[in-house]
Amino acid sequence: MCVQHEKHDRLYKIRHSGAHVLAQAVLDMFPEAKLAFGPPIDNGFYYDFELPRPLIPEDLKLIQKKMKKIAAQRQKFVGRTVPIAEARNFYDQMGQVYKVDQIDKLASQGVTEVTFYENILPQTGEAKFVDLCGGGHTEHTGDIGAYKLDSIAGAYFRGDENNTMLTRIYALCFETQDELKEYEKMMAEARKRDHRKLGKDLELFAFDDEVGAGLPLWLPKGTIIAEEIENLAKRKEKEMGYSQVKTPHLAKEDLYLRSGHLPYYEEDMFPAMEMDNERYFLRAMNCPHHHKVFGATPKSYKDLPVRLAEYGTCYRFEGSGSLMGLMRVRGMSMNDAHIYCTEDQFEEEFSKVIELYMYYFKLFGIEKYQMRLSKHSDEGLGKKYLDDKEKWLESEQMVRNALEKSGVPFVEAEGEAAFYGPKIDVQIWSAIGREFTLSTNQLDFGVPARFNLTYTDADGSEKTPLCIHRAPLSTHERLIGFLIEHYAGAFPVWLAPVQVDVICVSHAFSEYGQKVVSTLESAGLRVQILDPENSLSKNVRLSETKKVPVKVILGEKEMQNEGVTVRRYGQDEQVEMSLEDFVKQIVSETKV
Amino acid sequence: MCVQHEKHDRLYKIRHSGAHVLAQAVLDMFPEAKLAFGPPIDNGFYYDFELPRPLIPEDLKLIQKKMKKIAAQRQKFVGRTVPIAEARNFYDQMGQVYKVDQIDKLASQGVTEVTFYENILPQTGEAKFVDLCGGGHTEHTGDIGAYKLDSIAGAYFRGDENNTMLTRIYALCFETQDELKEYEKMMAEARKRDHRKLGKDLELFAFDDEVGAGLPLWLPKGTIIAEEIENLAKRKEKEMGYSQVKTPHLAKEDLYLRSGHLPYYEEDMFPAMEMDNERYFLRAMNCPHHHKVFGATPKSYKDLPVRLAEYGTCYRFEGSGSLMGLMRVRGMSMNDAHIYCTEDQFEEEFSKVIELYMYYFKLFGIEKYQMRLSKHSDEGLGKKYLDDKEKWLESEQMVRNALEKSGVPFVEAEGEAAFYGPKIDVQIWSAIGREFTLSTNQLDFGVPARFNLTYTDADGSEKTPLCIHRAPLSTHERLIGFLIEHYAGAFPVWLAPVQVDVICVSHAFSEYGQKVVSTLESAGLRVQILDPENSLSKNVRLSETKKVPVKVILGEKEMQNEGVTVRRYGQDEQVEMSLEDFVKQIVSETKV
Repeated sequence: MCVQHEKHDRLYKIRHSGAHVLAQAVLDMFPEAKLAFGPPIDNGFYYDFELPRPLIPEDLKLIQKKMKKIAAQRQKFVGRTVPIAEARNFYDQMGQVYKVDQIDKLASQGVTEVTFYENILPQTGEAKFVDLCGGGHTEHTGDIGAYKLDSIAGAYFRGDENNTMLTRIYALCFETQDELKEYEKMMAEARKRDHRKLGKDLELFAFDDEVGAGLPLWLPKGTIIAEEIENLAKRKEKEMGYSQVKTPHLAKEDLYLRSGHLPYYEEDMFPAMEMDNERYFLRAMNCPHHHKVFGATPKSYKDLPVRLAEYGTCYRFEGSGSLMGLMRVRGMSMNDAHIYCTEDQFEEEFSKVIELYMYYFKLFGIEKYQMRLSKHSDEGLGKKYLDDKEKWLESEQMVRNALEKSGVPFVEAEGEAAFYGPKIDVQIWSAIGREFTLSTNQLDFGVPARFNLTYTDADGSEKTPLCIHRAPLSTHERLIGFLIEHYAGAFPVWLAPVQVDVICVSHAFSEYGQKVVSTLESAGLRVQILDPENSLSKNVRLSETKKVPVKVILGEKEMQNEGVTVRRYGQDEQVEMSLEDFVKQIVSETKV
Repeated sequence: MCVQHEKHDRLYKIRHSGAHVLAQAVLDMFPEAKLAFGPPIDNGFYYDFELPRPLIPEDLKLIQKKMKKIAAQRQKFVGRTVPIAEARNFYDQMGQVYKVDQIDKLASQGVTEVTFYENILPQTGEAKFVDLCGGGHTEHTGDIGAYKLDSIAGAYFRGDENNTMLTRIYALCFETQDELKEYEKMMAEARKRDHRKLGKDLELFAFDDEVGAGLPLWLPKGTIIAEEIENLAKRKEKEMGYSQVKTPHLAKEDLYLRSGHLPYYEEDMFPAMEMDNERYFLRAMNCPHHHKVFGATPKSYKDLPVRLAEYGTCYRFEGSGSLMGLMRVRGMSMNDAHIYCTEDQFEEEFSKVIELYMYYFKLFGIEKYQMRLSKHSDEGLGKKYLDDKEKWLESEQMVRNALEKSGVPFVEAEGEAAFYGPKIDVQIWSAIGREFTLSTNQLDFGVPARFNLTYTDADGSEKTPLCIHRAPLSTHERLIGFLIEHYAGAFPVWLAPVQVDVICVSHAFSEYGQKVVSTLESAGLRVQILDPENSLSKNVRLSETKKVPVKVILGEKEMQNEGVTVRRYGQDEQVEMSLEDFVKQIVSETKV
């Protein structure tokens, strides 16, 4: 059976249909194959099988050929309802144990009927293939877009390592051949830009078995990038009236019971430490600590908005199998802040947060981005969501107003909000067109009251503020992982760990080289001199390998003129200029 | 019995003798009193008793009077050796259960003889008092310096809460009356400057029951101080060729088994968290992570010295009873760095660390300080210390050379080194003369090898570097706790959370006030305008209460002249100057 999915749009149907065709082709090749699940996924689909032998790359070609043949036959996808006992019997006789298992699971949930989707040969009406499936297909097998069997992987049945290991066949699938090609090109480029590879080559970060999985060590060069980003954030936040705070990385269970993270979120947190007969948890988010900072001193309406910012490090438990470079880690430093404000102040405050996003997008050259307004659902009220429909509608409208005013592109999604209020999820696309989830902002109308946070209003009454959770620069880990791909490791001057490589064409100019280095260092630039024992071409190559944005080349002429010859990363063009002008130019590029 | 102590210097003897006189006086007043222990301590001595009734302040006066009488009699302190059985019998008959307990403990350790010290009346030879004691007294009871019974506290026998609660009488004791007075004056001033009180009044930090004991929350104003200090450290470290790194706050057990912190140091660490069937520990120190950073990329002799710095947060378990404000905490952010160098480079590197201390001492106006060279002891070789005497002598000499070259005052202490090498413990004295332990620097010739850290030498061979551990600015917690007392909360301009308070003498000048605020803010200053609804005197008082270093007062004349009237914290004197000059002056005070 295929996984149910809300989004039965055209691309979904194409991929879903493709999975059926794949299964039909595999069964044609291995009649004894046992079928498990075959859902559409981002960029394609897969299907899990138990096969009589391991697959080799040639098998994929053959299977793809068979799929082409099935497509050419334009078999119709036709659904019919079947009593569950009959369905079980059908699969049981065929020895399709995984389908039987799935039917038993459905039966145990009280399901009495299931649907079969059959691929019907139009000429004869013969059913060439049947799958237990909730539907959502194109009309016929000819309409499965442009696809390509991409890779094979092992996968446990139902993802449980106590179950049998199955063979998963992945396929890329898009509506058109052009889109498929485009995607393949992007992925080839993404592999070249893989942040794990570049992170190692450029000595940005490392993982260590004795430290632990998902816990990056930022090496000196990576730390420079992280600190530049942190300084940028702090400067912008200072301009915008934020206050920095520093809070511990753990707290007693009591804090997370109050915030509501315990017990619901416990499985995503690191396990408890017991001290003084109390349980302590590493924090998975900074907000409860910030609420405590807000509450530590009395506040008047004149103090609002209070904007508390911290590049706070959080720890979240992720299964070791799902960890991936910097993109999925267990320790992360977040560009976090919490803005406590009145309802009247909300729209302006939220708009300023959006403006800050726009500023950062422009700075990083992020041209494609989208915000999603995640709203409550009526069914979820009192369950997934605070039971106050009016408050929800009102706060969603507040966020919508702010988004519309900012002119930022956004979509709306029901039933995706946080428990305490609507949120905005931000997606960005890298220079090569790959999509990343950047961060989430939230309007929280619930938690401040749980922390008894109040301010004294002009009339002397105690009121509860709203709280905006925001993290425009995401975490160091996710943002820098993204930026490595986005810039292909060739960071702009302001972010580059080494900004200028000084290359002397021979030993004779070492002294002048040192002078250039001192001049650049005095101007606050990060500079290194390459070994003059190396040939010019070797040093140029070394600098290119390390993707240093600027090279200055020094020889007789440069020394005589107190000048430099400048070459940018990845470019052959050389420009001569005075040392003084060069310093001015590069320093101006560090000002963002 | 009195606690044994190595330092039988004059002050020790005076205080030790004072404790005997105190016990004699208490026995005279309460013949049924039971005596436990009475050691000399910093600044005086105490004695623990089981008494027939609680003491009232008047009792202390009476006891002190009795002590005076005993002192006037100049009873001689005379020791004699007694077989342990006889000693036990003696105290048993007197019902002195705590002395009997102590004798039993000694007997169980195989001791066969103990010493009694008696107070002998010179005229008659009569023993007026006897104590089980290892000795170290002045000649007679008249020679016990200047003392004052100071306070009473409850204390469990042997510090164990399962034992009886005894009454502890504390006495201050110094050689001269002047020293005693000086100390009392200092402590009265220290109470006014108590960092816990000022930290609350000035809104610098807070503790919260739901976060946990010993885990400070740095509020916005305290965070400004911490960040100024951090920026200072990073700037100095950049000048001196350090690289910043960022590493996680925890690691697998494996890392601490390798470093040797486990199992020996486990009780000082937070308890383990179990994940993926492995134990993780919050770090109690940053060095193991830094060693991993050093080891993450290959190093050549040309790369050395490698200086890795991180304001790293560590977590150490301290019993809840011993926590005290910022001075004894469970979470601390350390001005840490590790310098990996060759033996040849050591002296220069270590000297530069000492120079950095000197720079900071001067900056903070710390006039009195002392360094202690803590060395190995021969008995400890192979037990407390790495078993390589030659290496110890050599490395101690290396540190001594560096200290002598720096001209910094230092003393030497045997048997106080770390396991892996000699260290320097740094003591500083606050403006009111109170002593603080600031930090420790270590020459480590053992651990780099345990981490297989190497560099390729010029001859191609792999060598192990030395490692210097250093933290001149200690932790934020300890340093800021110290600075609050040192400055009595009145921070210099560069550190002050608010640098300038703008006070308009009436509403009429609010607009000019706003202009002054913007001008100061544009110059990067931290400034606030006080409520013009308040009277001038009220605003001046408010500013003084918050110890803001500079006030500018604005009225008609100032507005006309584009000027300001400036008043410094704690001073009545007012100076008129142009706004432009004022900005220049204050900005210059932020440059340290």
